[in-house]
Amino acid sequence: MQAQPRAPISPPPAAASAPTPAPPPAETLVFPPSDAAKLTSHLPPQHLQSQDQDQNAPTPQSRRPFVTLTFATSLDSSLSLAPGTRTVLSGPQSKAMTHHLRAHHAAILIGVGTAVADDPGLNCRIAGARSPRPVVVDPRARWALHRDSKVLQLARAGQGLAPFIVTAEREPSAGVAALLAEHGGKFLFVEAAAETGRFSWADVFDVLGREGLGSIMVEGGGEVINSLLAEPECELVDSVIVTIAPTWLGQGGVVVSPPRTVGESGRPSAPLRLTGVEWHPLGEDVVLCGKILR
Amino acid sequence: MQAQPRAPISPPPAAASAPTPAPPPAETLVFPPSDAAKLTSHLPPQHLQSQDQDQNAPTPQSRRPFVTLTFATSLDSSLSLAPGTRTVLSGPQSKAMTHHLRAHHAAILIGVGTAVADDPGLNCRIAGARSPRPVVVDPRARWALHRDSKVLQLARAGQGLAPFIVTAEREPSAGVAALLAEHGGKFLFVEAAAETGRFSWADVFDVLGREGLGSIMVEGGGEVINSLLAEPECELVDSVIVTIAPTWLGQGGVVVSPPRTVGESGRPSAPLRLTGVEWHPLGEDVVLCGKILR
Ligand SMILES: NC(=O)c1ccc[n+]([C@@H]2O[C@H](COP(=O)([O-])OP(=O)(O)OC[C@H]3O[C@@H](n4cnc5c(N)ncnc54)[C@H](OP(=O)(O)O)[C@@H]3O)[C@@H](O)[C@H]2O)c1
Ligand SMILES: NC(=O)c1ccc[n+]([C@@H]2O[C@H](COP(=O)([O-])OP(=O)(O)OC[C@H]3O[C@@H](n4cnc5c(N)ncnc54)[C@H](OP(=O)(O)O)[C@@H]3O)[C@@H](O)[C@H]2O)c1
Repeated sequence: MQAQPRAPISPPPAAASAPTPAPPPAETLVFPPSDAAKLTSHLPPQHLQSQDQDQNAPTPQSRRPFVTLTFATSLDSSLSLAPGTRTVLSGPQSKAMTHHLRAHHAAILIGVGTAVADDPGLNCRIAGARSPRPVVVDPRARWALHRDSKVLQLARAGQGLAPFIVTAEREPSAGVAALLAEHGGKFLFVEAAAETGRFSWADVFDVLGREGLGSIMVEGGGEVINSLLAEPECELVDSVIVTIAPTWLGQGGVVVSPPRTVGESGRPSAPLRLTGVEWHPLGEDVVLCGKILR
Repeated sequence: MQAQPRAPISPPPAAASAPTPAPPPAETLVFPPSDAAKLTSHLPPQHLQSQDQDQNAPTPQSRRPFVTLTFATSLDSSLSLAPGTRTVLSGPQSKAMTHHLRAHHAAILIGVGTAVADDPGLNCRIAGARSPRPVVVDPRARWALHRDSKVLQLARAGQGLAPFIVTAEREPSAGVAALLAEHGGKFLFVEAAAETGRFSWADVFDVLGREGLGSIMVEGGGEVINSLLAEPECELVDSVIVTIAPTWLGQGGVVVSPPRTVGESGRPSAPLRLTGVEWHPLGEDVVLCGKILR
């Protein structure tokens, strides 16, 4: 429980100049089994939770991954105060929950906006738990991944995996490609729509499925989530887990709100409702679990 | 529990032309004592819950009412799909809770935007319970209240009270004034800021306190709530009760999100956090109770 409004965190200090600096010591997180039990029915089936399971599965088509959409918002549905401003929204229990979810998915996916803004670690910090494969959706290969990026520091320290970068760029930076290869990551090519430069999410998930990733936890940011909450892409989402913190971030944040739909009458209609809903208070936050109503 | 996305309700059918039509029969609501018990500590002190208590209290200054901010939003913090579109967001249990809150406040306050958009009844439909005094904040006296407005129909049927309209208009419509007087309501004059046409909320609550209204439940809509969540007005709010429904209304709704504040560093900061937080699942919705952290 935290009594003060949590201020935006300042960017991490510049990394040391040694070629392979040790990652900063990170605290281990604990998520109590009593809390974990409440989430079990909202997780992917057990056999899809770890990487590289079922490598010899029959057809690629049968392997589209289980997709969990999960993120933390303020009461006014903001993910952060501003795109470049890392914002600690939820409390320590919810943070441990996020890492529990990471341990139960083969991959964790974010948009390049979040990768650039936050330099995230994308690993699992629960003692003894597996880290998921980080996936960054980066159609123009604009993420300037470097040796000191947190995700590579953690990979070198054996505390996480190197990322897969999903891109439409046919000739991404050779330097980044080499860095990825050195750490066990890679670029994955997906065709983007010519006019919009956007992937179809079905294509992205298919490619990830073919990599043996049976479950994907989509963590953000705003653009990624809003596009997955839109029709028809939302049909690809199997489970939704949203943490809400009892704070308002105010107008101008990175907001989760799907594009507006229009009903038969020509009037706006509610685009999306959850079903099978459960609300679990967790510290000062609440965790909402459900499925998108079809 | 409702399995379908709830569509916007169409406007009520045109009222009959008889001078005093009977109000349409409305169902009575029931709010179970077990649910009510969870809210008790977030309600005004008992002696401030009913109207016209303590008429002989010493000084007007000592009588600023207890203010509860309460409303229902979607996950994307929308109150409704659009200003003119009445939107049923929360489920039947939450609706009964709203009426329970109405029974425990001397007055219920809304902005004229809501009065015009929704033609609301503003009474309490729990059997045997008292209805609060409706208060409409209408600086320019633009609400075209008429004999068939729902709130007057209910007043005539003894199922609710006639409204007090808080206005800065020195000569509001004589017709409306007569209609109000006939039903037991009235205009209350408050000075508005010359440049903005806006009241200070302290002035509004002071005037209501002098009318013997010891507790005010502020129900909406968007502009009223956002202005009360802004500094320094939020200091007038004693209790916050928000119902959240597991639906996204999509971009373009009437959104609750206070104006952005800027921290000492010149960077945006989180404007508002709640403290003493409780989350109570209620049907498919969740009810958040707390106080604004000072
Ligand atoms: N609270 C939380 O749980 C949470 C979680 C994650 C992130 N965040 C916050 O969210 C913010 C970032 O959000 P954001 O909206 O700016 O960025 P984002 O969603 O992380 O990334 C957006 C970018 O990803 C690419 N992209 C997304 N969908 C795509 C698609 N269908 N096809 C192709 N490319 C696609 C595009 O790259 P191009 O522009 O190159 O085309 C797009 O600009 C940060 O402030 C971060 O802290 C919060
Ligand atoms: N989900 C819920 O719980 C809930 C509850 C209530 C309402 N609603 C919805 O909210 C929508 C209406 O919201 P809204 O933002 O359009 O209208 P609103 O907040 O009800 O009313 C706004 C108007 O009230 C007056 N006003 C507000 N604050 C004032 C101040 N400090 N000083 C002077 N005047 C002030 C102004 O009148 P002038 O323009 O004349 O200056 C302003 O335009 C409707 O769609 C309604 O259904 C939802």
